[in-house]
Amino acid sequence: MFGDLMGMMGKLKETQQKIEETKKRLDTITVSEESADKLLSITMTANRELKSLEINDELLQDKEQLEDYLVLHINKAIEQATKINEAELGAVAKEGMPNIPGMDMFK
Amino acid sequence: MFGDLMGMMGKLKETQQKIEETKKRLDTITVSEESADKLLSITMTANRELKSLEINDELLQDKEQLEDYLVLHINKAIEQATKINEAELGAVAKEGMPNIPGMDMFK
Repeated sequence: MFGDLMGMMGKLKETQQKIEETKKRLDTITVSEESADKLLSITMTANRELKSLEINDELLQDKEQLEDYLVLHINKAIEQATKINEAELGAVAKEGMPNIPGMDMFK
Repeated sequence: MFGDLMGMMGKLKETQQKIEETKKRLDTITVSEESADKLLSITMTANRELKSLEINDELLQDKEQLEDYLVLHINKAIEQATKINEAELGAVAKEGMPNIPGMDMFK
């Protein structure tokens, strides 16, 4: 079921390298999040690094609304980035794992 | 080296369950991030969910400074949260993996 041990070790090393490459590639993928009224826009990499945040002057008039907007839309951006991050890294990790029915560690 | 297959499968199932438990626990751990001048404070869970964000009125006078502060300190909060997240989940995953010298997939 596992093939020979040396082959498995080679495969794991290969997977490890692919994970590092994928992490680098995720830095170049960005997600955009904008409030429906377009008063706040955010861009974030798929590694969850906030790259830019633009606040419309109108939002500065009401601090509570601004804080609520920020929490809501930053969380949405993080969620989007995390989905891409986990899908990409999960695919690489899964490829490198032995296939055991009923196991799904990287979902 | 791997012991018997049934034992390994049992261990993987156990690890999978521990990962789910750890993810839930990470929701209850929060990190705090504050600018040195205390004009901005942020709390975030170790699952990288922004819980609160408090902006001092003074920051509303200068939108560019506000945007810069937000990008800087939100990224610092995400970084702190990610460190805890990876340390906790990594420890569980590592415990559940066969020990192969030179392999460190979950660092």
